[in-house]
Amino acid sequence: MTAFAYRIDATDEDARAGVLHTAHGDVPTPAFMPVGTTGTVKAMTADAVRATGASIVLGNTYHLMLRPGAERVARLGGLHRFMDWPGPILTDSGGFQVMSLAKLRKLDADGVTFQSHLDGSTHRLTPEHSVEIQRLLDATITMVLDECTPFPASPEEARTSMQLSMRWAQRSREAFQTREGYGLFGIVQGSVYPELREESARALIRIGFDGYAVGGLAIGEGQATTFAVLDATVPNLPLDKPRYLMGVGTPDDLIGAVQRGIDMFDCVIPTRGGRTARAYTSRGVFNLRNARFADDPAPLDASCRCPACVRHSRAYLHHLFKAEEMLGPMLLTWHNVQYYQELMRGLRAAITERQLEAFAAATRAGWLRDDDE
Amino acid sequence: MTAFAYRIDATDEDARAGVLHTAHGDVPTPAFMPVGTTGTVKAMTADAVRATGASIVLGNTYHLMLRPGAERVARLGGLHRFMDWPGPILTDSGGFQVMSLAKLRKLDADGVTFQSHLDGSTHRLTPEHSVEIQRLLDATITMVLDECTPFPASPEEARTSMQLSMRWAQRSREAFQTREGYGLFGIVQGSVYPELREESARALIRIGFDGYAVGGLAIGEGQATTFAVLDATVPNLPLDKPRYLMGVGTPDDLIGAVQRGIDMFDCVIPTRGGRTARAYTSRGVFNLRNARFADDPAPLDASCRCPACVRHSRAYLHHLFKAEEMLGPMLLTWHNVQYYQELMRGLRAAITERQLEAFAAATRAGWLRDDDE
Repeated sequence: MTAFAYRIDATDEDARAGVLHTAHGDVPTPAFMPVGTTGTVKAMTADAVRATGASIVLGNTYHLMLRPGAERVARLGGLHRFMDWPGPILTDSGGFQVMSLAKLRKLDADGVTFQSHLDGSTHRLTPEHSVEIQRLLDATITMVLDECTPFPASPEEARTSMQLSMRWAQRSREAFQTREGYGLFGIVQGSVYPELREESARALIRIGFDGYAVGGLAIGEGQATTFAVLDATVPNLPLDKPRYLMGVGTPDDLIGAVQRGIDMFDCVIPTRGGRTARAYTSRGVFNLRNARFADDPAPLDASCRCPACVRHSRAYLHHLFKAEEMLGPMLLTWHNVQYYQELMRGLRAAITERQLEAFAAATRAGWLRDDDE
Repeated sequence: MTAFAYRIDATDEDARAGVLHTAHGDVPTPAFMPVGTTGTVKAMTADAVRATGASIVLGNTYHLMLRPGAERVARLGGLHRFMDWPGPILTDSGGFQVMSLAKLRKLDADGVTFQSHLDGSTHRLTPEHSVEIQRLLDATITMVLDECTPFPASPEEARTSMQLSMRWAQRSREAFQTREGYGLFGIVQGSVYPELREESARALIRIGFDGYAVGGLAIGEGQATTFAVLDATVPNLPLDKPRYLMGVGTPDDLIGAVQRGIDMFDCVIPTRGGRTARAYTSRGVFNLRNARFADDPAPLDASCRCPACVRHSRAYLHHLFKAEEMLGPMLLTWHNVQYYQELMRGLRAAITERQLEAFAAATRAGWLRDDDE
């Protein structure tokens, strides 16, 4: 068996390149995790996800506990087998989506009660229950249940919320069954307040986790604030553990966060964009529904090796979206996920060569060369 | 360059196994053509279509002329390049879908005027124009414009309609530009009347085509009538030319038609079924939404080599359809097209070994072993 361990191979200023070893395989970092909401990265086969170079995917506990149900997934051999992803899987705690998707949710000191957005049935999530659901799913990395403090929040609201999350983090740690190669991550909260972020980080370190996530960001505060919170938070996290910025972000966000010492990311931007004709490329962001692509024989991104770019023209992709053909989302999601993985490969190589600043500047300059938005 | 030619390698009673040589490659027959309506076999990448073993696909002239437009496809290098299908493509004439999809259609002796179902714009299709559109698309096999006689039709209606189609067939032949490796197929009409079918076949043979289609079937007349019309029609067709039964059908229809001497088919059943949870398998037809699959760890079809069957459980496919995930249609369309191609491979092998009757009986017996419908 493989111990759950993080090895840093290179650093460039605050940025790190390394490998996270897990029971289900290695994750080279910095790593972007495609979001596999209900047991599928939307519009992609598992083979396609693998072909992009992704080494880890994320599953949503809220969705999976409601449908098909964690016990069912366990009976069927776990999420890896269910979705044909033998590699590492990180699951969120369910808390974030309870607050954003569920109906009639009610938070108390012990947990949260909510009604399913699917059928109105009543469910309850506590720190212990969330950990148990993630165990049934066989998550390689389990996230503690927390409260994602809304933005904006007053210092008092942010402190109360953060302290609740820290108590839940302690309970999650106690409920988590240690297994070789599996890990549990704590989540730093504290809104935009540096002293609360520091207090939260210290509380988590006292409990002790296999990795540390930064939560409560990318919820409307803006990139400058996100980066300021990272600047106040990351220096308080252990050097030798992976750091995961939850729910972030655009390619530009990823570069800035890697420069600030973040190792892992997840976000729906590449997959949601793939379904809505929004293309992320080395030349910037395009909306493929734009009429200017109707007769464009060029590949979407000449530097990309995905099937959408190697096999087809922008004109064809434009046509697929105009005709509302499923192949449009299929090809563009593949491309976007591939672009994100290429970006992570580039970041890892640049850190190893201690050329991160030059790589970041060149990448950002590329985006300006052909941008319609 | 390759001449457009059909070589028969084996026969078993009236059934034939052969190879159709074209400018874009060979088509082993009997062949099933997946329907690539608007330049995409719905929910499949071209790579996936190839992986099923399909050697030829069908494109719909009506859809493509309206969007993205035949001239645009021509400017972009033709339909093969546009949709990443360098192999043979057969296009229909557009006539059938004008009558089934367009608004305010008006047929006259010279052609048909109609309004696009997309934007209400007015278009006209004549035999000459249909042939020209198919040339712009770079169709390997062009179909003559005909009138698909509605069912039911009186003998008089059927005769008048058939005779119109024969005049249009003559005009299509004259408009068609002969190119090495490209072919033009005529279409037998005549509704359910044997003497009209015979008259239509003789008229087409006098004109001379590279292949002969049987049209006006699978429009509500029922399998027994379809087969009776084939029995009255096929013996009147040249032995040395491919025979194409348009718009057919279920796996059982295909077996019966191959036994009656048909070489080529197209139908939306496997692809439409793939999007609506309807699975065609060696054990019969399943609706994957059925609750009995929710905990079923077995593969959809243990004898199938497609990713849906090799990588996943029935429970996972059931979950994807319940959750309305795009991957459900993606995987099941792949499976259904693969099943159809496996069936055609089995038919070709059985004809070669002169075991067609035994193969047909064994295949039909398999369908009865696990059928929920």
